[in-house]
Amino acid sequence: MAAGEFKVGLLGHGTVGSAFATLLSERADEIERFNGMRPVLGGVLTRSRGSYEEILEGSDAIVEVMGGLEPAREHLLRAMRAGKSVVTANKQLLSHHGEELYETAREHGVMLRFEAAVGGVVPIVRTLEESLSATPIERIHGIVNGTTNYILSAMSAGASYAEALAEAQRNGYAEADPSDDVTGRDAAAKMAILARLAFGTPVHLDDVRFEGIEQIKSDDLEYARDLDLSLKLVGSAERRQGGLSVSVYPTFLYPGHPLAAISGSFNAVTVESETITEITLSGPGAGGRQTASAVLGDVVSVMTGGARPPAPPLALELIEDVESAFYLHLDVEDRPGVLATVTQVLGEQLVSIKSVVQRGLGEHARLVMVTHPVLESALRAAVERLGAFDFIRSSPRTIRVIEEEFM
Amino acid sequence: MAAGEFKVGLLGHGTVGSAFATLLSERADEIERFNGMRPVLGGVLTRSRGSYEEILEGSDAIVEVMGGLEPAREHLLRAMRAGKSVVTANKQLLSHHGEELYETAREHGVMLRFEAAVGGVVPIVRTLEESLSATPIERIHGIVNGTTNYILSAMSAGASYAEALAEAQRNGYAEADPSDDVTGRDAAAKMAILARLAFGTPVHLDDVRFEGIEQIKSDDLEYARDLDLSLKLVGSAERRQGGLSVSVYPTFLYPGHPLAAISGSFNAVTVESETITEITLSGPGAGGRQTASAVLGDVVSVMTGGARPPAPPLALELIEDVESAFYLHLDVEDRPGVLATVTQVLGEQLVSIKSVVQRGLGEHARLVMVTHPVLESALRAAVERLGAFDFIRSSPRTIRVIEEEFM
Repeated sequence: MAAGEFKVGLLGHGTVGSAFATLLSERADEIERFNGMRPVLGGVLTRSRGSYEEILEGSDAIVEVMGGLEPAREHLLRAMRAGKSVVTANKQLLSHHGEELYETAREHGVMLRFEAAVGGVVPIVRTLEESLSATPIERIHGIVNGTTNYILSAMSAGASYAEALAEAQRNGYAEADPSDDVTGRDAAAKMAILARLAFGTPVHLDDVRFEGIEQIKSDDLEYARDLDLSLKLVGSAERRQGGLSVSVYPTFLYPGHPLAAISGSFNAVTVESETITEITLSGPGAGGRQTASAVLGDVVSVMTGGARPPAPPLALELIEDVESAFYLHLDVEDRPGVLATVTQVLGEQLVSIKSVVQRGLGEHARLVMVTHPVLESALRAAVERLGAFDFIRSSPRTIRVIEEEFM
Repeated sequence: MAAGEFKVGLLGHGTVGSAFATLLSERADEIERFNGMRPVLGGVLTRSRGSYEEILEGSDAIVEVMGGLEPAREHLLRAMRAGKSVVTANKQLLSHHGEELYETAREHGVMLRFEAAVGGVVPIVRTLEESLSATPIERIHGIVNGTTNYILSAMSAGASYAEALAEAQRNGYAEADPSDDVTGRDAAAKMAILARLAFGTPVHLDDVRFEGIEQIKSDDLEYARDLDLSLKLVGSAERRQGGLSVSVYPTFLYPGHPLAAISGSFNAVTVESETITEITLSGPGAGGRQTASAVLGDVVSVMTGGARPPAPPLALELIEDVESAFYLHLDVEDRPGVLATVTQVLGEQLVSIKSVVQRGLGEHARLVMVTHPVLESALRAAVERLGAFDFIRSSPRTIRVIEEEFM
């Protein structure tokens, strides 16, 4: 049977690596029946065992699930230079060294696949690379971090940030050190990868503006309910002003937006384009076995030649100052003329108000507004001016808002 | 440039065909830039113009968007026998003659692609064929007909069936003759295609048990609200009792089910499997331009060799009598002992009750129940026995219920 075998060199044997090895042996018969070739392990590299050189020599393709930048980067580059296709689940590596990896794959005519790096169980990478390859994409919105979506769901049910985080940790949805998730950094790495796929333009993690959820207050969620909004950590990649804008921000969504109903530790990505209107892919965030399943799918497509080397890059300009609607929360003294002054300052910066909720009296008055779309720089300028008035009693808070556009 | 051209023979020039021709010329530059080959029209066959033989001779691949069984079937078979890959949007043809078409593609080593036949803008065909090809699928649930989902959404907002249908027709979501949609036949054809893809077993339209939405009453939707359920026309394909069950029925969904929030003319498909848990793809039902976009995606994958001939079939047994929870609506006389008799009859058939709502008094009393999962044959037997009692004043009504399983 050796002639019909496809040898997979496995780099890393942690949660995902060991789940991959198990799944590979469970599914080998079925894969062979459908594809005429049988995938088998050609060798496993762990921290303490195995030689990379021997594994590379004895493998038809390399699977990297060790994580981290080095030596993962060096191992993948060497494999591709040796003419072997590679599969990785390493989002940090792709968001830092994506262009170098894509370029090497292209140069050596091999495949570089990474479905497991983004979107949990959702096959968003392949959908962008293949189903939508003939579609000019306008915009992607994604909930691409299950931990923060779990925390925000718990907060919208009434928990404080600290309570929600503790609950997520207790239930295995957040790590002991959750900073990569709650700062938005994990989501930013994934959006860099998706933006590269959707728009063909190189996007480094450093190009993605991001903000996490640590500063979200329970009362933001309370006001949101009054305004019929739901709060998500939304990654966006979109054509703006002839360029490309990529960001991750806590964002309010109107009901009816496809991402508004995504709760718990789920991931979801909405792709919009004139020709397809929109599609949304959703599913639970991935554990080890689900990630391994995505890796195995990539191995099968490498084995059967169903995937192509990455396309050469385009170069859209990365735009930083983009239009958005905003939620604006002002803690004000309740005295005559305050609302008039606030609206005047906003008007001078061309910030126009869509809806206002005023709450409380005297010491605890709050003005909560949703604006019409406005350039972020204009809103920032208005907020800075407002912050200087003595009737503003704590720093104004702002959160982005996405309006329903379809249906 | 002729060397780099890929000639597409277009059969049919109605809504989809003319949208395809337009889209092809709009997108040709971009496709050529990414793939090194330029797709161009090699000829167009309409009812009054063009010769099939000449078009076949002058084309590298054939696109069939004429609809109907013949001559579409004959044209596609001849093209494949001549060694040309084909793309079709014809769900009726695939659900009637799928095996013959798949077998011919396999025999001649050509591709048969049909993303546009199922799921509106949602790339469910490719997701099943490729992303999930290494995943053993347990179950598919789909809302695959936008017309009926639009009508049910309007009914759940208070409209009668007739009002909702008229509204759908006025807004272009239902045809003048809506029978293919409202009888469930269109959805059944699509589920036959999806079941074949997901489970590898030949499924003919005649193998799909289906029921439409014409008999749905507004008060079913009212009770559903009391029970916190939403009503959808759900197609199901699932492994049951070692075989395969494929059906389309009006079905109540618990909140939290991924399809419960899909409203208006949207389509959505949820795929469940142990290794991936579940993924859901959703998007608006397709108009001509969206369908043309899916067809063009298939043309690009044929052109670049990114797709493979279909795999040979398996042969799971098709199971008809399967377990499900049911909503049971009984119009009863309000007199002592009625509930006791009803529960006794149900109990004898091992139908166990999960929840009951009793409404009205005297002449207009109604018992509305949701059962635990039970074999359909057992429920039918119980309902038949109940129908014979004189305290039952009109035929009992039953609707399937899907409970939330994940999250």
